[in-house]
Amino acid sequence: MISRYSFGKPFETEALVVKIEATEGKLPFFRTDGEGNYYYDFDDKDIVYGLGEQIRGINKRGWTYTSWNLDNPHHHEDTHSLYGAHNFLLVDGKELFGVFFDFPGKITFDIGYTKRNEMHVYADRNDMNVYIITGDNKKDIVNQFRVAIGQSYLAPFWAFGYGQSKWGYITEDDVRRVAEEYAKLGTPLDSIYLDIDYMQDFKDFTVNPERFSDLKKLAESMKEQGIHLVPIIDAGVKIEDGYDVYEEGVANNYFCKNEEGKDFVGAVWPGKVHFPDFLQPEARSWFGEKYGELTKLGIDGFWNDMNEPAIFYSEESLSEAIDAVASLKGKNIGLSEYFSTMGTIQGLSSNPKYYDQFYHNVNGQMVRHSDIHNLFGMNMTRAANEALCKLEPEKRTLFFSRASFIGAHRYGGIWQGDNLSWWSHILQGMQQLPALNMAGFIYIGSDTGGFGADTTEDLMLRWIQFALFTPLFRNHSALGTREQELYQFDSCKAMTEMVKIRYALIPYLYSEYLKAVINNDMMFKPLSFEFDDEESKCVEDQLLIGNELMIAPIYKQNASGRYVYLPEDMMLIRMRKYDDYETEQMTKGHHYIKVALDELVFFVRKDKAIPFAKPAKSTSELDLNSLGRLGYEGAKYEMYMDDGINPDVSATLKRVEI
Amino acid sequence: MISRYSFGKPFETEALVVKIEATEGKLPFFRTDGEGNYYYDFDDKDIVYGLGEQIRGINKRGWTYTSWNLDNPHHHEDTHSLYGAHNFLLVDGKELFGVFFDFPGKITFDIGYTKRNEMHVYADRNDMNVYIITGDNKKDIVNQFRVAIGQSYLAPFWAFGYGQSKWGYITEDDVRRVAEEYAKLGTPLDSIYLDIDYMQDFKDFTVNPERFSDLKKLAESMKEQGIHLVPIIDAGVKIEDGYDVYEEGVANNYFCKNEEGKDFVGAVWPGKVHFPDFLQPEARSWFGEKYGELTKLGIDGFWNDMNEPAIFYSEESLSEAIDAVASLKGKNIGLSEYFSTMGTIQGLSSNPKYYDQFYHNVNGQMVRHSDIHNLFGMNMTRAANEALCKLEPEKRTLFFSRASFIGAHRYGGIWQGDNLSWWSHILQGMQQLPALNMAGFIYIGSDTGGFGADTTEDLMLRWIQFALFTPLFRNHSALGTREQELYQFDSCKAMTEMVKIRYALIPYLYSEYLKAVINNDMMFKPLSFEFDDEESKCVEDQLLIGNELMIAPIYKQNASGRYVYLPEDMMLIRMRKYDDYETEQMTKGHHYIKVALDELVFFVRKDKAIPFAKPAKSTSELDLNSLGRLGYEGAKYEMYMDDGINPDVSATLKRVEI
Repeated sequence: MISRYSFGKPFETEALVVKIEATEGKLPFFRTDGEGNYYYDFDDKDIVYGLGEQIRGINKRGWTYTSWNLDNPHHHEDTHSLYGAHNFLLVDGKELFGVFFDFPGKITFDIGYTKRNEMHVYADRNDMNVYIITGDNKKDIVNQFRVAIGQSYLAPFWAFGYGQSKWGYITEDDVRRVAEEYAKLGTPLDSIYLDIDYMQDFKDFTVNPERFSDLKKLAESMKEQGIHLVPIIDAGVKIEDGYDVYEEGVANNYFCKNEEGKDFVGAVWPGKVHFPDFLQPEARSWFGEKYGELTKLGIDGFWNDMNEPAIFYSEESLSEAIDAVASLKGKNIGLSEYFSTMGTIQGLSSNPKYYDQFYHNVNGQMVRHSDIHNLFGMNMTRAANEALCKLEPEKRTLFFSRASFIGAHRYGGIWQGDNLSWWSHILQGMQQLPALNMAGFIYIGSDTGGFGADTTEDLMLRWIQFALFTPLFRNHSALGTREQELYQFDSCKAMTEMVKIRYALIPYLYSEYLKAVINNDMMFKPLSFEFDDEESKCVEDQLLIGNELMIAPIYKQNASGRYVYLPEDMMLIRMRKYDDYETEQMTKGHHYIKVALDELVFFVRKDKAIPFAKPAKSTSELDLNSLGRLGYEGAKYEMYMDDGINPDVSATLKRVEI
Repeated sequence: MISRYSFGKPFETEALVVKIEATEGKLPFFRTDGEGNYYYDFDDKDIVYGLGEQIRGINKRGWTYTSWNLDNPHHHEDTHSLYGAHNFLLVDGKELFGVFFDFPGKITFDIGYTKRNEMHVYADRNDMNVYIITGDNKKDIVNQFRVAIGQSYLAPFWAFGYGQSKWGYITEDDVRRVAEEYAKLGTPLDSIYLDIDYMQDFKDFTVNPERFSDLKKLAESMKEQGIHLVPIIDAGVKIEDGYDVYEEGVANNYFCKNEEGKDFVGAVWPGKVHFPDFLQPEARSWFGEKYGELTKLGIDGFWNDMNEPAIFYSEESLSEAIDAVASLKGKNIGLSEYFSTMGTIQGLSSNPKYYDQFYHNVNGQMVRHSDIHNLFGMNMTRAANEALCKLEPEKRTLFFSRASFIGAHRYGGIWQGDNLSWWSHILQGMQQLPALNMAGFIYIGSDTGGFGADTTEDLMLRWIQFALFTPLFRNHSALGTREQELYQFDSCKAMTEMVKIRYALIPYLYSEYLKAVINNDMMFKPLSFEFDDEESKCVEDQLLIGNELMIAPIYKQNASGRYVYLPEDMMLIRMRKYDDYETEQMTKGHHYIKVALDELVFFVRKDKAIPFAKPAKSTSELDLNSLGRLGYEGAKYEMYMDDGINPDVSATLKRVEI
């Protein structure tokens, strides 16, 4: 059961698709002071799940988290905000309930940081809807919430293939070379991503004519090889006379305004930009239709970036910082002066004050950006999705975004933002998956191998062995870091075998993805969502995938094995190639398993089986009509299949027992 | 057997205390190109131990490490350099050998980063001694190396007590309050540390007369409570007319010079400073004697900080950076210009180029600092130690340093530098311990609870449960972070019980410390140093302490237990208070053990026992004459004891069988 409690004057975030009448009476479970402080007292063993894309463990106890979409590429253990804002929590212990704080501005969750046995939630303003969800069990509560927030975005089948990306593919030759090298190596590949360099001066919906002389031709030739090109779209629109997007936006008041009613100026990749006011339906339609410039060229997938929105500096702040530094000239500078000035410089990027300086036009009312900050990226993806549903109604377009809020899950997937080539970020990425599923995001994945910092060969292999289970399986890295296409490594063959195994698993993964979307279910679950024992509640580094699999990836350097907890008897699969593997019956309990660097290990749950395909060089060539099986003999599996294209999933959905 | 291979014109680092004649003939194990590149080809299962204070695991394979003493308070997985430079490695696998690259400048160890199965070592110049050590086993090789580098510094007994520190004790009242609060709580305490604020304007060997009106009286009143005050000493000497240290240093040419022969100017806490030329024996004597200003006031312990040396900026670089920023004023700034200028600002701190800009006077020769950079901090601690041995010959003075090189271990301990309140830094600190022991550093420990970032209550408890086993057991945190004296937390009583257990363990820990120092042995060992099985080689999160104990700390948030590998039958000790514990016989193999947040768990090795004291409020009150025992019945333990004061350990050493 879902109940809504309304405080102050909530902003309509459109997170929910159903209208729930506000309940009179006291908010259950929490103590409130009427001034926006919500307290919950924990028992020692209470567990808190949720918060979507956040740092730390599956159990969120012991830290403070702030929902504030933030460009935070160097995040670590003491970060408080990442790219997304997903204010849904599930408390399990002396009480069992879900709670969604439907608030589009900054809201903080002190989950036992200040006081170990107290959760304290507080927002900038106490204008919010708080939804309390009770139910039979954790899955039931999540399912009710998911129904209320509406069906998740449905990605095309080809988006389950392997993708290669890098900030640093500058020319179409770079792109062709990626395709060639992978073809030479025999690695399956379904997509190559275009980061910011394909554009002319980082202008959205433009293509640099020298470096990409004929994008249409390039897209066609790639498509012939089964490869989709997926360009990036940034939130900021370059200020440049003659640039149609800029001029139309200005002419129609489609950009966010500053206090004086002028178009707000920030600086991002193109230099000075205006930000589309994605909260205006007209601005959304207008901006969304621009994606058509690229779909006309054969593009059928996009990633929306920098849409927190990231702001490197504002004109005013940069000018102030320059003045502050310049004033030091010739002075004998005291240390406090020095550090304060350095702090000013370092604080330029995405400084919170910028978000107080611009406004959205919401039904004629000017709404300060910081009051609805976390809705910005969501509505950018919505703009794209809604327009493409009109422009290309016959097929699914791939969308995923960096910034998000609950509600965005209806319009696209997300990638888990700019991460680092750190071993700890394998685990961090994995721990976010169930929490993202709870918030409705099913088409998800982290930058495989790590985006920032230099990867290593073993990190790459181990990361692949985890990421091959995630819907979005993309190798992506930053400019200036070690090149990490698989063919850069001595063990590229072992890596390729892992990618082939991914393709063999696609029938299962895609089927479980469809189930999660259609049935408002979770694709990735903590063990404790299926098993009641005390041990399962403590497991932070294993996940259930669908109803059949459990994964326990290696995420430590030089590890030649790991401990695994089996909440029931399971079958271990030890796989070097899709057709070179052993199985082993393992009993419920704790185990240490050895796992060589070129081996994938995963588990089939008791009396379950999964479909298993012969790999192909792209998803389009996968033969779904002659599937093998992995798992227990005699076990049945209900496979969901569709054509992977039709936006109306029910039109082609088949449920096949295999 | 140790053999020396000499390349080019090595600088005499004084790392070794014995003279080993250079061996003619080819360097074994490595391929060399005569130009300073050293290659070693790994087998898949080879393990590399060593490198002292560095990031990543006990097994160093898979990353690139650069020995370059660096102020790096925000270090993480992709860091390359920390505060110390410890160029000793032990390779175990198809071959077994130790190697010490005796080179005082920048030297890089690519241990399977570029190519997984190759180690590539290279330095700025190929002027170095390479020592190859072969032996019967790992311990034997380490022992031979340790003999060659000379006996490790001997800390006073009181330095094994618990210490409280914080950057932010501004007045003597702050110090008194710490003592009072701990006394109230009943927490044992042996030391309170004075960070930079006790000084007048951050001038070494001065005391601010307003905030610390009578340090002598304060020290006396603390000593009456069993508490030693331990002030910080920084490397840079403030440029200020009338300040004796500055004026004497200038007058006697005791400071490092720039290219024109003028005293080099850098900026650190006091603003502009000169750096003492610690490579000059006269400068060392002079600076060392200054510590006497504080010992006269009753001080008997020091920590030497910022002695990499850290340099916030140089006059020239700051001026250039200011100009660069100022030149942006009024311009429409391109992104590359923006990022390059921001990079200039961010690159001011400890910029490598500074270290090319000053010189040491080595026997009349001007030696560029960067050529001997890693010897600077070592010789600061040497200055202090050598002077105090003359000034206070009858007793041991506590010294530990941030920067170090092998050789520094003879003059003081080290703390493991500015770390962070991160769970991963518990493990990181632990993984460094055996490598530091290999390099001769025995009096060691990390900032308990974490220095930078905000700690949490559970992090604090878990960190204490690990740190109570390390010789240096100090709670230290940075200005502006959460206050983390134990009395700041609800569970201060549980924390206090852990500190009491530390005191109960001191007879054992101090005995094992003495053994490690006297016998050139390791106090902390990876399991693989005692056990030959394959499993032991893989264990990265357990350590042997001396010959009797094994620790397996909890270093994950919300963990209520952990996996442990027992290489032999052992006795588990589960302790809530020093007199409230259970024991359990456990068999060799893998186990999952539950550990409540207020429980300490450790293991006594088969047929061993350790002495166990009744805790006291300080080490001076520990009754070492009526010790209890923990462990197997009938097991004998040889305890080393001395008076804990006499610098000549043999004068009071007793070996008692208990």
